[in-house]
Amino acid sequence: MYDLHGETVHFDTEHNRLLLLDQTELPNKTVVLSLSRLEDMVEAIYNLRVRGAPAIGVAAAVGLSVLSNESAAKTPAEFQAEFLKNAAILEKARPTAVNLSWAINEMRKTQSAHAQAPLAVQKAALTARALELHAADIAVCRTIGEYGAALLQNCDAVLTHCNAGRLATVKYGTALAPVYVAKEQGHTMKVYADETRPLLQGARLTAYELCEAGIDVTVLCDNMASYAMQQGLVQAVLVGCDRVAKNGDTANKIGTSGVAILAKYYGIPFYVCAPFSTIDKNTPTGAEIPIEQRDGEELRSLWYETPKIPQNAKTRNPAFDVTDHSLITAFITEKGVLQPSDFEGYA
Amino acid sequence: MYDLHGETVHFDTEHNRLLLLDQTELPNKTVVLSLSRLEDMVEAIYNLRVRGAPAIGVAAAVGLSVLSNESAAKTPAEFQAEFLKNAAILEKARPTAVNLSWAINEMRKTQSAHAQAPLAVQKAALTARALELHAADIAVCRTIGEYGAALLQNCDAVLTHCNAGRLATVKYGTALAPVYVAKEQGHTMKVYADETRPLLQGARLTAYELCEAGIDVTVLCDNMASYAMQQGLVQAVLVGCDRVAKNGDTANKIGTSGVAILAKYYGIPFYVCAPFSTIDKNTPTGAEIPIEQRDGEELRSLWYETPKIPQNAKTRNPAFDVTDHSLITAFITEKGVLQPSDFEGYA
Repeated sequence: MYDLHGETVHFDTEHNRLLLLDQTELPNKTVVLSLSRLEDMVEAIYNLRVRGAPAIGVAAAVGLSVLSNESAAKTPAEFQAEFLKNAAILEKARPTAVNLSWAINEMRKTQSAHAQAPLAVQKAALTARALELHAADIAVCRTIGEYGAALLQNCDAVLTHCNAGRLATVKYGTALAPVYVAKEQGHTMKVYADETRPLLQGARLTAYELCEAGIDVTVLCDNMASYAMQQGLVQAVLVGCDRVAKNGDTANKIGTSGVAILAKYYGIPFYVCAPFSTIDKNTPTGAEIPIEQRDGEELRSLWYETPKIPQNAKTRNPAFDVTDHSLITAFITEKGVLQPSDFEGYA
Repeated sequence: MYDLHGETVHFDTEHNRLLLLDQTELPNKTVVLSLSRLEDMVEAIYNLRVRGAPAIGVAAAVGLSVLSNESAAKTPAEFQAEFLKNAAILEKARPTAVNLSWAINEMRKTQSAHAQAPLAVQKAALTARALELHAADIAVCRTIGEYGAALLQNCDAVLTHCNAGRLATVKYGTALAPVYVAKEQGHTMKVYADETRPLLQGARLTAYELCEAGIDVTVLCDNMASYAMQQGLVQAVLVGCDRVAKNGDTANKIGTSGVAILAKYYGIPFYVCAPFSTIDKNTPTGAEIPIEQRDGEELRSLWYETPKIPQNAKTRNPAFDVTDHSLITAFITEKGVLQPSDFEGYA
């Protein structure tokens, strides 16, 4: 087995390979992919072998660097043409993930800045930039974890929804970073993980990664969160997010708004953990965040041998919901523990 | 196919058979069972082919009558011995369901009252009592439906959790009775049904019975209830219940308390529909209601080809939760639309 060094996405610079933990095989098999061909990288992103916006971005940057190092191009023009073609193909693997375009653009800028340099210099620059992006993701998540761990010193257990753990980033995750950092600091919290229907990210991914890290994790059906809070099992809720509006309204995995309402009712703090880049100052409120509606067949038959909903019944399958800012205790970012009124003060 | 006459449990007196809709085959197959042998009746109750406390009670009463009519006993003593043996065996099929014991006791009283009468008279009395219990269940549910339909005249759509529909009773159900009666009265509401993990009663049973009745039903994952309320899709919540304490705290399927908290947050009325007999004046508050904890394997692997939770992760599987009385707008019973303070006024 290839060594991921405890990461979800790893750059094996010795062998010039993109290493990925194949998330489609979890939790039943741990498969590490070692990739050097463009088509394999595209397939891995498209088929969610690597998922989570930050992890996808870093995987694409590392992938582009691996491809550049493998290039047989003889001239700068030939090298650039090949690089830009690879970048365009990778970018299309999942066109809606903002971090994917962003990371690929960072690589384009690096190549462009060295476009006249000898090919060995260009390759080294791209490798260095991919390693920087990889390291930056770890650093941002680690800082989120440090701020969060400080807030949660008196918590025995936290509840989380979906997977915003290390599997969605390079290493620490966002929502789970405070749990990992607290453990490094000697404070091991228990985690209750909503299974997160219909895709079961909580059951399959959050439970997997916490078990791997030796953290006590208990999976609940989504409808058991109220029971867990009523019984005093958790003292805080930690979630990641997909987009934060300027006023603090937060889009995240379907069900997040319900967990936030329950937390408010039971007087339990509800924290959104995210890189500051997830705060979109161009979106005034949650009402302007579009909600992806997915195929209802995911409810009816995904995972099952026979459908569990009659064919003539309808389904709805919103992939996200918006949590009102009034339900969010604070945003834990790499710039600190923030309120929406603090957002303007940071670039 | 045998004719259930639109019921879940039917007494075919012409052929002396207990007819049941086999709920284990739903929603993929509609199978009607025609039973005359004790072992088949026990099997059907034990394996949840008939489920829902009211339906189980009526099925046992009808079953006892069918068995009595088939009896080859020659003397009253012989007949009574056989009757009491059958009753004891049926009662053990699911020992925790109160309605099962209750209905069987009603049949015992009837037999006892006619113990000296000719066998033909005893058989006729038992048949009459089974038909009475069957009719009473329909009548109680129908009255709940009438009170509920009057309350919901301005509703376009309601949300329900789990299955407290006709499949849990003889005909109208409890939580869904207002929907069925409103439809008879010309007001067709849409229903949003939580799928209700882990056993999927909402997806499999509620969706099935509403489709059969020609009612527009949309299945949601449990974690989508907040989204549905936020989007204004529903104007009321209807649920059944397993036990109501004297102060109005209500035990029902896991997740019910969460739905009630969401309804309160969004300002949507939350109604508990139940026969008055479900109100247990001997239980002061919800804290005294024991909560059944089921096997966590239901979360990990029920319905799936391969487990979806890692083996070293823990699970919790409470089957019920308690909804605080302060979250319940009203109790819709056959005695009227009640508040907990009204309970004492009724026997």
